[in-house]
Amino acid sequence: MIVTKYEGNKTFTVGEKAIEQPASGEVQIKVAYCGICGTDVHIYHGMMDKRVAMPQTIGHEMSGEISAVGAGVTNVQVGDKVVVRPLDNRGELPSDKGISHICKNLKFIGIDSPGAMQQYWNVPAFTIHKLKASTDLKLAALIEPLGVACHDVRLSELKEGETAVVLGGGPIGMLVAFVAKSYGAQVIISEVNPVRIAMAKSWGFDVVSPIDTDLVSYVEGKTDGKLADVVFEVAGVQPALDIMTEVAGIRGRIVMVAIHGEPKPVSLFKFFWKELKLIGARVYEPEDYEKAIDLVTKNELPFEELITDVQPLTKIQNAFEQNDLNPNGMKVLLDCQN
Amino acid sequence: MIVTKYEGNKTFTVGEKAIEQPASGEVQIKVAYCGICGTDVHIYHGMMDKRVAMPQTIGHEMSGEISAVGAGVTNVQVGDKVVVRPLDNRGELPSDKGISHICKNLKFIGIDSPGAMQQYWNVPAFTIHKLKASTDLKLAALIEPLGVACHDVRLSELKEGETAVVLGGGPIGMLVAFVAKSYGAQVIISEVNPVRIAMAKSWGFDVVSPIDTDLVSYVEGKTDGKLADVVFEVAGVQPALDIMTEVAGIRGRIVMVAIHGEPKPVSLFKFFWKELKLIGARVYEPEDYEKAIDLVTKNELPFEELITDVQPLTKIQNAFEQNDLNPNGMKVLLDCQN
Repeated sequence: MIVTKYEGNKTFTVGEKAIEQPASGEVQIKVAYCGICGTDVHIYHGMMDKRVAMPQTIGHEMSGEISAVGAGVTNVQVGDKVVVRPLDNRGELPSDKGISHICKNLKFIGIDSPGAMQQYWNVPAFTIHKLKASTDLKLAALIEPLGVACHDVRLSELKEGETAVVLGGGPIGMLVAFVAKSYGAQVIISEVNPVRIAMAKSWGFDVVSPIDTDLVSYVEGKTDGKLADVVFEVAGVQPALDIMTEVAGIRGRIVMVAIHGEPKPVSLFKFFWKELKLIGARVYEPEDYEKAIDLVTKNELPFEELITDVQPLTKIQNAFEQNDLNPNGMKVLLDCQN
Repeated sequence: MIVTKYEGNKTFTVGEKAIEQPASGEVQIKVAYCGICGTDVHIYHGMMDKRVAMPQTIGHEMSGEISAVGAGVTNVQVGDKVVVRPLDNRGELPSDKGISHICKNLKFIGIDSPGAMQQYWNVPAFTIHKLKASTDLKLAALIEPLGVACHDVRLSELKEGETAVVLGGGPIGMLVAFVAKSYGAQVIISEVNPVRIAMAKSWGFDVVSPIDTDLVSYVEGKTDGKLADVVFEVAGVQPALDIMTEVAGIRGRIVMVAIHGEPKPVSLFKFFWKELKLIGARVYEPEDYEKAIDLVTKNELPFEELITDVQPLTKIQNAFEQNDLNPNGMKVLLDCQN
């Protein structure tokens, strides 16, 4: 089987190794596709070298088929199409209060332990979500990031008829926008990249470039002065932090999806004045995965167009290099089947 | 009647004027006591000169008795003991979504229109909450700040058995701590002033000075590692903002009570990582006032000791000057009856 490894210094190696049988409680998956996540790009750039035990196989946005099951595994069978919810919560403590998906000792599979950028992948059986036999495995590689979006929107308590503003139209921002629309909300995306703007418009979204339009006035006009009920901060830049508290209306909810490594200035006065809420949201819970699976299975959204490139697994180095050079791209998949 | 006016430049004048009859829809209150609020101190320091139309009578933490009613007033009678909820929401708009108490055009009575630091005060009848005939009018002057505390704790969704950390043991912080305790929570106060620490301890609170104790380790030890379920940021200083995201446990709620005039650095990463919530809370809604009235009426808490000084209305200048010089003081009242 082919296995790839991140070696540090922006380098992946592609090698061969024998297929390993799954241990007790594990399943072996023949990986179909694995998407490149923003986190994978961070790893590639060396920004997580302290956490990643190199050389390491990374990747977690995957789809595949069960090819073997270890002793005691009863929830899946060989041949089942599956995705992995890559959260290993076996170190959970009482002080986590039952909030398993972000427990203090959480291990993220594909960062803290080997990931899916290989042909066969052994994982604990409890991480598996089953797909229908009819599910397209290429689209199914979007289930993990779509699960993030489902979690973000669920925690926002978005209601039908409310207005959601998505700051940042990258892959996660677009998925958040799709999920928000599926809740029956009016969705406005703020994005600066013209290619992404055109893409979002082609999908029927209301898109504003905050460079040439005053976003707050725009949203005010679209909401009879109410402004946004929910804001998703997916951009990860200071101007988004500056505008999030302006574009949110009275008692608006702001969901912090972006990862800001350093403390950043935030208008706490606006939180006080308008009784805003800031809601931190990280990864997903099982119900978010099920919602994502349902959306992909129904296939009523233009998921196909979100996948802007597919490269063979052996071209992993090239895929990461090209991804860096293409700010217009959305989701790049590795095809692990050949 | 005696009337005081803020004239700018840290100066109050004390004058005489004729008692005015209440207009239609208004009531006339014979003011008993009026507390000095942090906002009144800000006004005195000239920090709100753009908003306050000088010369202006300020003050809103009051108690009194109805002395006359205007045409059409049916909710109160002469002789009723009352407090005023000083929010004039008559400019409310549909875009406020029914959230009256912080509507965009809200006028705060005692800042944007004349306040209670005078012997007789005319206000709209809809601002009145009635007290029992037995209620102590001196303690009743605490109802307004206690209403703030009731609002803060209600919005935090604090539950019995949870742990609340109050950052800052000033008057509002102490009231928040009392209300949190009345919910059946374990309460830990973080305060640096030794006199306030001693005061809080005398009331049975668990108090930590973050200068000589590691607050996070302390709370960790008191909660079997869970850390705080709810944090109230009432200190208004950067170290409190730095520690609030540390001392909050997984999915902890942080209530922003303090007013931070400028954007301040906040660890948004911790919001993401622990799925924290930040909850902005401003003034109060009618049910918060009723809860505060109930607590004062029952009089089971050491409200009397929170009142560290009472000065006659005519000594207003001295009262504000002394208040500035005494960092140990809690609540100073003006007695408006003589």
